[in-house]
Amino acid sequence: MAPLSARVVDDPVTKLADDPRCARGLAWIDKNAAWVTDQQIRLTEIPAPEFNEARRGAALKELLAASGLQVRTDKTGNVIGERSGSDAKSVILVAAHLDTVFPASTDVHVKRKDTRLFAPGISDNGAGLAALVGLARALSESRIRTEKTIVLAGDVGEEGEGNLRGIRALVDAYGSRLSAVIAVDGPSSDHITTQGIASHRLEVTITGPGGHSWSDFGAPNPITAISRGIVRFSSTSVPNDPRSTYNFGIIEGGTSVNSIPSRAAVKVDLRSEDEHEVARLETALRAAMQSGMNEEVSSTQAARDALQISFRSLGVRPAGKLPDDSPLLSTIRSVDRYLGNRSRLERSSTDANIPLSLGIPAIAIGGGGKGGGSHTLDEWYDPAGRELGLKRLFLIVVSLAGAER
Amino acid sequence: MAPLSARVVDDPVTKLADDPRCARGLAWIDKNAAWVTDQQIRLTEIPAPEFNEARRGAALKELLAASGLQVRTDKTGNVIGERSGSDAKSVILVAAHLDTVFPASTDVHVKRKDTRLFAPGISDNGAGLAALVGLARALSESRIRTEKTIVLAGDVGEEGEGNLRGIRALVDAYGSRLSAVIAVDGPSSDHITTQGIASHRLEVTITGPGGHSWSDFGAPNPITAISRGIVRFSSTSVPNDPRSTYNFGIIEGGTSVNSIPSRAAVKVDLRSEDEHEVARLETALRAAMQSGMNEEVSSTQAARDALQISFRSLGVRPAGKLPDDSPLLSTIRSVDRYLGNRSRLERSSTDANIPLSLGIPAIAIGGGGKGGGSHTLDEWYDPAGRELGLKRLFLIVVSLAGAER
Repeated sequence: MAPLSARVVDDPVTKLADDPRCARGLAWIDKNAAWVTDQQIRLTEIPAPEFNEARRGAALKELLAASGLQVRTDKTGNVIGERSGSDAKSVILVAAHLDTVFPASTDVHVKRKDTRLFAPGISDNGAGLAALVGLARALSESRIRTEKTIVLAGDVGEEGEGNLRGIRALVDAYGSRLSAVIAVDGPSSDHITTQGIASHRLEVTITGPGGHSWSDFGAPNPITAISRGIVRFSSTSVPNDPRSTYNFGIIEGGTSVNSIPSRAAVKVDLRSEDEHEVARLETALRAAMQSGMNEEVSSTQAARDALQISFRSLGVRPAGKLPDDSPLLSTIRSVDRYLGNRSRLERSSTDANIPLSLGIPAIAIGGGGKGGGSHTLDEWYDPAGRELGLKRLFLIVVSLAGAER
Repeated sequence: MAPLSARVVDDPVTKLADDPRCARGLAWIDKNAAWVTDQQIRLTEIPAPEFNEARRGAALKELLAASGLQVRTDKTGNVIGERSGSDAKSVILVAAHLDTVFPASTDVHVKRKDTRLFAPGISDNGAGLAALVGLARALSESRIRTEKTIVLAGDVGEEGEGNLRGIRALVDAYGSRLSAVIAVDGPSSDHITTQGIASHRLEVTITGPGGHSWSDFGAPNPITAISRGIVRFSSTSVPNDPRSTYNFGIIEGGTSVNSIPSRAAVKVDLRSEDEHEVARLETALRAAMQSGMNEEVSSTQAARDALQISFRSLGVRPAGKLPDDSPLLSTIRSVDRYLGNRSRLERSSTDANIPLSLGIPAIAIGGGGKGGGSHTLDEWYDPAGRELGLKRLFLIVVSLAGAER
C-alpha cells in the first residue's frame, strides 16, 4: 500500500501500481527482499576485476534465465536478457555493471556484522546486480506484458580502465531502438544521476638508463622524477564549480631495492562536470609531470635526454546531461512521489555517460538499501530499505515500457 | 710464460707458478676460456631472482661435481663444494653469489653482438659464477694438493633484500676455521675490494582510508604523501667523503585508477663507507617521509591521524675494512705483480662485508673479462682478458691454501 498522500487518483503511476499484474510484482518484492540479498552475496563473492568479469557474468546469466529471460553473452562480455514487448523497435535498457575495482587477489568473502554486509564490491556493484536480478524476477512474477522491449544487462568495463566498453557495445547494438537507458549503480534510493561527468584517464611513464645504486649514484631516478611531477600537479588549483577532481590511483616502478629503476609509471583519473575543464586538467598534468622530470634531470646534472616521458590514454568518458524537462525524469519523479521517496539530482561518471553523450535519455540510480566505503576494502551494504529501491526500479521500468492493456 | 719483469727468482708466486702442477692448471685456463664462457651463458640463462636461486644453484652443483668436488646444498640454499686439504681446520672460502636483481619475468636470454654478450645478470654475477666453475676445473686439472681446505660456494641472497643471508650462513658454518674469504663478484681484474660499504635497506609504507576518486576527492592520498617524502629526502645533502649514496629502488601503491589508494610503499637503499653516516641518512629519510606525509595530511585538511606511516628494515649490512698490512692483501699484490696486472683498492657492498665485519680477512675481486650496465637490462660482458682474471683467482687461491710438497 502506497502512502496516502501519494494516492492522487489520476496519477498514471498510481493507476499502474493498482493494476493487479503490477501489484503482484510489488508484492513479490515485499516478500522476497532476503532472497535478493542472497543473490547479491553470491554474485559479490565471485571476483570480477576489470577485464575478468566472465565468471560473475555466467552466474548472472543463470539467474536471469531462471526468471524466464532469453539470455545471451555478447562478444564484449555483456550478459543480455531480453523481455520482448509488443513493439520490438522500442527498447528500455536497464544495465548494471559486473566489474569491480579490486584485483583478483582481493578477499571478496562477505562478512556480516549486525545488519551490515562487508565485502569489496558488495555495494558497487553487488547492489546494482542484485536489483537487476530482483527486477527480472518481479517482472516474471507480475506476468505483465509491456509495449516496449525490456533489456536487462550485466555489462563489463565500467570501472578503472574498462573505458565503458560494455555500455558502449550495448548502445551501439541497440542504436536508435533505445528509448531510455537506466544504469543501476551502487546502493540507495535517494538520487537520480542525470549528469555524466567527463573523465580522462592517463598513464604517465618515465624511463631512464637505470643503474647500480652505489656505483651509478647521482644518475636520474624515474621514481624521483615521477614523484616530483605528482607533487607539482598536487598544487594545481581545481575548481569547485564546475566540480572537478583528480586522483593518482596506481603507481609502480623499479625491480630491486639496490638498482636505480629504469621505469616508473602512475595512473591518473581526471574528472569534471565540464569537458573543457577536464581537458585543462590534462594539459596541467602533462606540464607538471614534464616539469617534474626536467627538475630531476637538472638536479642530477644529467644529459637533457637522460629521462623520457610518455603519456598513454586509458580512456575518455564524454560528459552529458539529461534535460530538466525530459519525460524520463518526470516519470521517475512521479514514481518517487507515489512511493513517498525523496530524491535529489546527482552528477557522476557511470554507464549513463555514453547514452547521455549521444542524446539518448539516460539516468543512473541506486539499487536500494544503504552502503558506503565504495572502492575500499571496508565497503559495506545494509539491505534495510531494499524493497523501496526495488519497487522504484520496477515502477520506473514498467512505466517507461508501458503496460499492455 | 709470465712477463720477464715479474720473474723475481725468490718471489713465492713465481715459484708456485713454476710448479708443474700449477703450470698444468694455468695451461688449462689458457686453452679453455671459451668453455668457461659457455658455462657463464648457461648459468646466466637460468633465472635466479632474489629468493629463487634454486634452479641456477642445481646447475652450478652439477658443474662443480663434474670437477671432482664433494658438493652439497645447505639449508639456506648455498651450493658448497669442498676440496679437502691436509689441514681440515683451515679453510679458504671462495664465494660467488647466485642471485640477480632481476624479477623472474625478465628475459635472460644471452644475445651476442660482436665480442660482447648481452643479458641481465651476464656480468653480475654470471662472470663470478663462471670464474668459480673455471677455478674448480683448473684445480682439478692441476691435480695439486693443498694444505688448507678450499671451499667453493655459490651463495644466495647477495642482492636486494637477500640481506647477505647466504654468506652469513657460510661464515657461521665455517666459523673459526676460516683463514680467508674471497668473494668473486662481477667482471674485471682491476680491483681489490678491501672495504665493505655499510648499508641500510628499508621499506616505507603509508596507509590511509582510500576512497572513490570522485566522491571522496580531497581525501589524503598515500601515493602523493610518499611522493612528497621522496622529493623532500632528495634535497638531503649526501657527503662525498665518506662516500654515501641513497636509492629509491621500488615503488608501488593503489589498485585502480579511479580509487584513492589505501596504501603506497617505497623501498630505499642507503649506503656509506661510514656506518655513522648511513645511520644519519636513515634518520634523515625517516624525518623526510614523515614530513611528506604530514604535508599531505595538512594540505588536504584531513584529520591528523588520517594517514599512517611505517618503516620496515629489509636488511642491514655492516661495514668492515681489511687492514692495509693484511697478509691476504700482500698475497694478492704478489699475484698481480707476477701477472703484470695493475689493480686498485675499492670499496663496495658485497659478500665480503660479513667476514670483514667479523675481523675475518676477506676481499672481493672480479672474475675477469670486462663488463658494464650492472643492474640494468642492458648489462653486458666481454670475455676478452678472461684468462688473466682466472689465472689471478687460481694463483691467489693456491697461494693462500698452500701447495703440498
